[in-house]
Amino acid sequence: MNVFIIGLGLIGGSFALDIQQEFKTATIYGVDTNENHLREALDLKIIHQKSSLKEIEKADFVIIAIPVDIALKLTPQILDKIPDTTLVLDVGSTKELICNAIKQHPKRRNFLATHPIAGTEFSGPKAALKGLFKGKTNIICEVEKTAFKLQERALELFSKLGMRIRYMDPKSHDKHIAYVSHLSHISSFMLGKTVIEKEKNERDIFDMAGSGFASTVRLAKSSPAMWTPIFRHNKENVIETLEEYISNLQHFKQLIQRDDFSEIYNEMENTNHIKQILNGIN
Amino acid sequence: MNVFIIGLGLIGGSFALDIQQEFKTATIYGVDTNENHLREALDLKIIHQKSSLKEIEKADFVIIAIPVDIALKLTPQILDKIPDTTLVLDVGSTKELICNAIKQHPKRRNFLATHPIAGTEFSGPKAALKGLFKGKTNIICEVEKTAFKLQERALELFSKLGMRIRYMDPKSHDKHIAYVSHLSHISSFMLGKTVIEKEKNERDIFDMAGSGFASTVRLAKSSPAMWTPIFRHNKENVIETLEEYISNLQHFKQLIQRDDFSEIYNEMENTNHIKQILNGIN
Repeated sequence: MNVFIIGLGLIGGSFALDIQQEFKTATIYGVDTNENHLREALDLKIIHQKSSLKEIEKADFVIIAIPVDIALKLTPQILDKIPDTTLVLDVGSTKELICNAIKQHPKRRNFLATHPIAGTEFSGPKAALKGLFKGKTNIICEVEKTAFKLQERALELFSKLGMRIRYMDPKSHDKHIAYVSHLSHISSFMLGKTVIEKEKNERDIFDMAGSGFASTVRLAKSSPAMWTPIFRHNKENVIETLEEYISNLQHFKQLIQRDDFSEIYNEMENTNHIKQILNGIN
Repeated sequence: MNVFIIGLGLIGGSFALDIQQEFKTATIYGVDTNENHLREALDLKIIHQKSSLKEIEKADFVIIAIPVDIALKLTPQILDKIPDTTLVLDVGSTKELICNAIKQHPKRRNFLATHPIAGTEFSGPKAALKGLFKGKTNIICEVEKTAFKLQERALELFSKLGMRIRYMDPKSHDKHIAYVSHLSHISSFMLGKTVIEKEKNERDIFDMAGSGFASTVRLAKSSPAMWTPIFRHNKENVIETLEEYISNLQHFKQLIQRDDFSEIYNEMENTNHIKQILNGIN
């Protein structure tokens, strides 16, 4: 089995590692515009061979794990070149634009739109992790538009990697993921920005930061090259979540200004049951 | 050595465990208005004996680890009762009001204002952890107002527990801690609230949440009884940080609305160096 991984970052690299583990006869070909990443992936034994899109017709399996704007351009070109038996899947964090982009493509049935909810704040081949997908949710969109035999092959892969499958339409995916993923990244980046700005004038603030701060701004280490196109693709939903978040913050601020601390208490107590919710995640 | 721990929560309990470890002859007396916590602390061998403020004159060492509003009332009463050789320290997250409250107290020199930057999102005796303070920063305020011999005893304790000491005036402490701790808690609570509100109408959102979301809302599990008085004590500083945070979020939203994604990229890239900063924390 020839597996082509397009994009050798955290997600692409982690797929490569797990596929090597689960499919001993698979040959992993790596494609990346970044020569350093190609070399690193080879050195780290994430891929067996460097390759390019020129060889893509050899692929049985293509995993597109690149920023969503580039995936939007590249996916139709890849579908143009692959044989009828090849499965192409993308793993991007937005699903509506990519599904629309290949809607009329003659090879639509060779494509599966997925979003594995897995990752860390790190990027590049060095960030790849064995077993990253174990126990994680994988959201599949428009499954009915993929050829049945290719669906089966994809599900076999996801099952061997230990993923839980959820089916969803692309519009709902993009709307909901804005809340549980995209908004978290913005809240984290802006929290980091607020404190960094303060630090410019007041020295040694970070010396006072503890693990709570570290946890809340962890996502502010994420890659701008990956996240900028996600916010562009999901613009309307992201704006909606931001407006609700800002409005909740303003309300909390007003309660403090009004000395309404019993309501401040209630606000926090009502949110405390996030405990039970989070227990289901980790 | 008789050590009185007032408040058998995460911080008080963790002090008790480490003191037992480092001072084999110490007897740990626990004081708490919550009978269940007293019993739990005894069962978990966090304390040696239940006690009450009536016995406080026996204490060589008093650690006040209760919500900051109650500490404000109780600290002068405790100072009224202790002998001249007793050291009383508080570990609350705000320092200006407590320092002002005991400013003129005849036993001011028996008191040390501290803030160990340590903890988790959990509370109660069960949340107590051995070694919690190892490598953590402890901020000491107005050190010069404490008797020199008692300073020495406090520093011996902190040193045995593995803490790094920073000296700071209470006003600066409260201003800076609003940025690196209090704001993180509000951003986390309001993020949790925003997503919970959405979940009420749209089912299964949390099924899509991953470790990034979990990390960003972790602090929303924190105790309202502890955090409400912190926000009240540090009202002006907290409002200032919230205004800056909201303004940064609004700016980010406007950039998305204006399709200024090159500036969105820059905003994230400029905040990315939080990586280096955080490496210093964990």
